[in-house]
Amino acid sequence: MSSNHDHELTDDDANVHHAWDNSLDPVLTVEPGEVVRFECRDALNGQVGPDSTVEEFANASFDPVHPLTGPVAVEGAEPGDALVVELLDFEHKGWGYTGFMPGEMGLGLLPEEFEDAGYHAWEFEDGVATFVDGIEVPIEMFPGTIGVAPGEPGEHDTLPPRNVGGNMDVKHMTAGSTVYLPVEVEGALFSTGDCHAAQGDGEVCVTGIEAPMFVTARFDVRKDADIDQPQFETEGPFTPTGRDEPMYGTTGIADDLMEATKLAVLHMIDHLESERGLSRGEAYILCSAAVDLKISEVVDAPNWTVSAYLPESIFP
Amino acid sequence: MSSNHDHELTDDDANVHHAWDNSLDPVLTVEPGEVVRFECRDALNGQVGPDSTVEEFANASFDPVHPLTGPVAVEGAEPGDALVVELLDFEHKGWGYTGFMPGEMGLGLLPEEFEDAGYHAWEFEDGVATFVDGIEVPIEMFPGTIGVAPGEPGEHDTLPPRNVGGNMDVKHMTAGSTVYLPVEVEGALFSTGDCHAAQGDGEVCVTGIEAPMFVTARFDVRKDADIDQPQFETEGPFTPTGRDEPMYGTTGIADDLMEATKLAVLHMIDHLESERGLSRGEAYILCSAAVDLKISEVVDAPNWTVSAYLPESIFP
Repeated sequence: MSSNHDHELTDDDANVHHAWDNSLDPVLTVEPGEVVRFECRDALNGQVGPDSTVEEFANASFDPVHPLTGPVAVEGAEPGDALVVELLDFEHKGWGYTGFMPGEMGLGLLPEEFEDAGYHAWEFEDGVATFVDGIEVPIEMFPGTIGVAPGEPGEHDTLPPRNVGGNMDVKHMTAGSTVYLPVEVEGALFSTGDCHAAQGDGEVCVTGIEAPMFVTARFDVRKDADIDQPQFETEGPFTPTGRDEPMYGTTGIADDLMEATKLAVLHMIDHLESERGLSRGEAYILCSAAVDLKISEVVDAPNWTVSAYLPESIFP
Repeated sequence: MSSNHDHELTDDDANVHHAWDNSLDPVLTVEPGEVVRFECRDALNGQVGPDSTVEEFANASFDPVHPLTGPVAVEGAEPGDALVVELLDFEHKGWGYTGFMPGEMGLGLLPEEFEDAGYHAWEFEDGVATFVDGIEVPIEMFPGTIGVAPGEPGEHDTLPPRNVGGNMDVKHMTAGSTVYLPVEVEGALFSTGDCHAAQGDGEVCVTGIEAPMFVTARFDVRKDADIDQPQFETEGPFTPTGRDEPMYGTTGIADDLMEATKLAVLHMIDHLESERGLSRGEAYILCSAAVDLKISEVVDAPNWTVSAYLPESIFP
């Protein structure tokens, strides 16, 4: 055990679960102030690797996703409190992947546009993940899934996020951030996993840069926090470099917010195909890994504007 | 006429119109490469001022909004092209306002939460707009409405944005940005107005920091651009300071994207009330002027995550 953490949880079967369930026994109980290092499997539980083919990815089982490391009980955490999770450090294992499933599975933002699956294994080196054509996406690690057990009894699927957090995919929950999770059961029962080495706001193809990873976090409890859903403090980065830089933007304008979102991403895929020479599948993957979706306006009835932002610095 | 522009359009009645209509005669015709300085009225056409009361704001007529300066015909622009608009410079007139209307009018993201109207007149000084309690929002000017005439004949309301642009409220269309607008009629027929001295992504209370302003832009034409909706290049800023800085984040998690958006903003209003001591109306106005909405994920069915970001540097 290093001096940097008080406890370590490996990704052995004994420390991994596949559903949110408040009847699970904690694998560890900690005091407020203690630091835990979690080893987290990738979202597909090791079914694909750096040399996998797109067929192997397309045939991966989604039942169950995601493997989560935990649960950790925190002494003194009670319903109505917020569990305070200070994200101290992330360490990847040198690789990750982004892929989309065949359209008929109905996953991702644009299943109707992609009949076949797509898969890219990224190599991580010198702080970047390498894509095709010399494109490099800066590595900014965060846990796709971070949450506590729901108060409602039974097994709950890990795919959707809930009031207690879970698969929120908030890319700004980076090292240095603090996450506040609404506690619904005694001890909170915290778990994390499904880590991403990078992701665009939106995670449009259904995967970020999925990667097995270590997550180091310090726990605390805020009594009577009275929050309904997770909140957080972060310093970003809010661009790939943490400073203003040239971005290419597309808009999606429609009378339905989801349709506006789809249009913004479709227009960005068109742009990446026509101006950057990517295949549409490559463009979809790059959007999921590195293009940010912002809600520009939700008040100019009846049409809303969603904008997609592509950082130009990722191109060679 | 200064050496910085080739043409100037004042905000006199002769240069201002209140609906998109491709039968309007251009008030000016320019060659590609020429620069025009537009004087633009505020969105409410001068009905309120720095000393207006909330009652005066609540009684302002919305019929018609918005006064737009133009239209300008650009030689050689034809349907299928993109009008290229290089935004060179903005100059405000020292003040602006943000307000929300009584809930019964159904405007804004959260009309059901605000029975009464709210209004704040901002003073602009040293690059910031001043709010209550010493809060200062950095001034980052852009045109809320920027577009060309729709191909469809007749008068079209200026409130919603369309394929040809218009009231997009994309806050990153700042000086230095280039906007590409799909041309639907000969000469494009460009107009702009409804300028904002700052705005959060989302413009949630229905107004940004509305301000009369001068907009200076250079025009060009990209032949056969084949874009369906506006696109743009920008260098931000993507945070109030143009670099990473501490933000407070709230999430909205729901099975409908608009509902998730509402929750994220409601949670931010709760935060501003409980942690920063603002009234809920002040918090709503501040969200509209300075809080950014990002789509964190739209793929973790059935629940989507929208996040709202409050820059901490705006507080004293």
